[in-house]
Amino acid sequence: MNTPARPDDIPTYEAVAQASRVLNGKAHRTPILTSRTFDELTGASVFFKPENLQRSGSFKFRGAYNAIAHLGDEERRRGVLAYSSGNHAQGIALAGQLQGVETAIVMPNNAPAVKLAATAGYGAEIIRYDPAATTREALATEIGAERGSTIIPSYDHPHVIAGQGTAGVELFEDAGPLDVLLVCLGGGGLLSGCALAAGALSPGCRVVGVEPAAADDAARSFRSGTLHTVHNPDTIADGARTPFLGRYTFHTVLDLASDIVTVTDDELIDAMGFLWERMKLVVEPTGALATAALLTGKVKAPGQRVGVLISGGNLDVKPLLRGVGR
Amino acid sequence: MNTPARPDDIPTYEAVAQASRVLNGKAHRTPILTSRTFDELTGASVFFKPENLQRSGSFKFRGAYNAIAHLGDEERRRGVLAYSSGNHAQGIALAGQLQGVETAIVMPNNAPAVKLAATAGYGAEIIRYDPAATTREALATEIGAERGSTIIPSYDHPHVIAGQGTAGVELFEDAGPLDVLLVCLGGGGLLSGCALAAGALSPGCRVVGVEPAAADDAARSFRSGTLHTVHNPDTIADGARTPFLGRYTFHTVLDLASDIVTVTDDELIDAMGFLWERMKLVVEPTGALATAALLTGKVKAPGQRVGVLISGGNLDVKPLLRGVGR
Repeated sequence: MNTPARPDDIPTYEAVAQASRVLNGKAHRTPILTSRTFDELTGASVFFKPENLQRSGSFKFRGAYNAIAHLGDEERRRGVLAYSSGNHAQGIALAGQLQGVETAIVMPNNAPAVKLAATAGYGAEIIRYDPAATTREALATEIGAERGSTIIPSYDHPHVIAGQGTAGVELFEDAGPLDVLLVCLGGGGLLSGCALAAGALSPGCRVVGVEPAAADDAARSFRSGTLHTVHNPDTIADGARTPFLGRYTFHTVLDLASDIVTVTDDELIDAMGFLWERMKLVVEPTGALATAALLTGKVKAPGQRVGVLISGGNLDVKPLLRGVGR
Repeated sequence: MNTPARPDDIPTYEAVAQASRVLNGKAHRTPILTSRTFDELTGASVFFKPENLQRSGSFKFRGAYNAIAHLGDEERRRGVLAYSSGNHAQGIALAGQLQGVETAIVMPNNAPAVKLAATAGYGAEIIRYDPAATTREALATEIGAERGSTIIPSYDHPHVIAGQGTAGVELFEDAGPLDVLLVCLGGGGLLSGCALAAGALSPGCRVVGVEPAAADDAARSFRSGTLHTVHNPDTIADGARTPFLGRYTFHTVLDLASDIVTVTDDELIDAMGFLWERMKLVVEPTGALATAALLTGKVKAPGQRVGVLISGGNLDVKPLLRGVGR
């Protein structure tokens, strides 16, 4: 692939502001957290936005809720379909449940039981498939056509991007203008939405995406101006294993982001160690990407006001807890 | 031992109210958290008070700060001594640092490196000893006499009890009156302080202590009316391995608590699983005691308003994180 065509309906800040009104009282307004120790370690004044405390355990609830809220009556009746083995699945399932819209999620047979259970627990129908026999995109398209249901993609959709941007809106509203905003980066939905928020609410703020080193498709796309792809990257940051930016997110990220940096899995584990041990927050590997960029010094911001988005906290902790007290 | 003599200066609610004024702006006012899922599982309306988010990682900061704030000028100059390998050590070290009072902590040679590092990080002098050769009480008494420093015990002290009670004050102020309050129980400082708060702010509220089954000295003391002792209990709840209630806490607990229940280590691990996985909170085993009592049904409160104190979140997570993504 080279440069994807620019869609006509790329979202603007107005869409993000409207999503904030839609989500008001529906999504949690997650707090802003600070850590004296983290500030000493990095030399910056850091404001964490912990979306692991969001409903469904990640920011994905925001975009999912906003997208479902924009459906017409006929679309609502026919239901929503999504394909995801991760946080988008849980976000769609809960957002559908709260808005009285039936949801079905296409998930691979080998998806972790804990994620299947959480998604089913929010009332979604789970459609399992054999990843060796078909792709989820093909299956979702087939089922969507059969049922007439609306497919809501996990990142490349104007209402999804606008919804994710509300996390950035709240961060700027509650912490004030920032010099730098660091955002976890997989498919680019959160980064795109937050960049739109920054442009309107904190002009001049540098917006930097942080990606796993093994899944650096967006960093390479950003540097080259053409779309790069990484399939099945080997990283513990499962939420950032998306193979490429989408049509909407490619253009928004290239237009608005200041930089994209990468961190290794070992650096992610160190950042998780800080967040878990010092801030008492259960954060999943993907959720620690932005924190890791600052902790490693890959992004330096001495004396600056820095926002750090924590994207989510969904991981299976039970195997880890077997080690407690041993 | 039988019944310890009742001290003349047992703290009252007035001491707790005064401690709230002392701690205002010094301790974090930790939030009140709720979980729809936990309410569904237990049938109650539950208000969590997460003191793992308190400064130094546990409620112990409250009592430590209040006790140091009550020292006279001469005592402040001579410094403070404490013996603890756990959360009291970190609470005293940070409270001393913030109030410009030197602190020394007597800790066993075999204390976990992570706890030594955290305590030293707050500026305390660490005095290590060989637990095979002497007891920490004997060593602390000797060093205290030599230096003229004031020993602040980890629970059996009026100002410490009053300080811990401020967590209960905040819970009642922010959540409103409760039918039941569940409190983690080791030496009884937190339970005593919270029982005083309940008596004044939520009369009729049942106050229940929760102890590890292997360290049920307080449960047996409560039932028999005489002091029972359990030395070196085998439980992962290291903060509740205290061998007995103190003079102040024995009488306050027997006077004011409604009941004491126990939970097993396996039940603690389950409760930690809920708090980590669903609420994204890193809680240490002792911190999950009260949650476990409700989750197991050992305390039943259908349709009632229940407060659950989470005492702390200090544990070494780095070994656990080695299992992430594997």
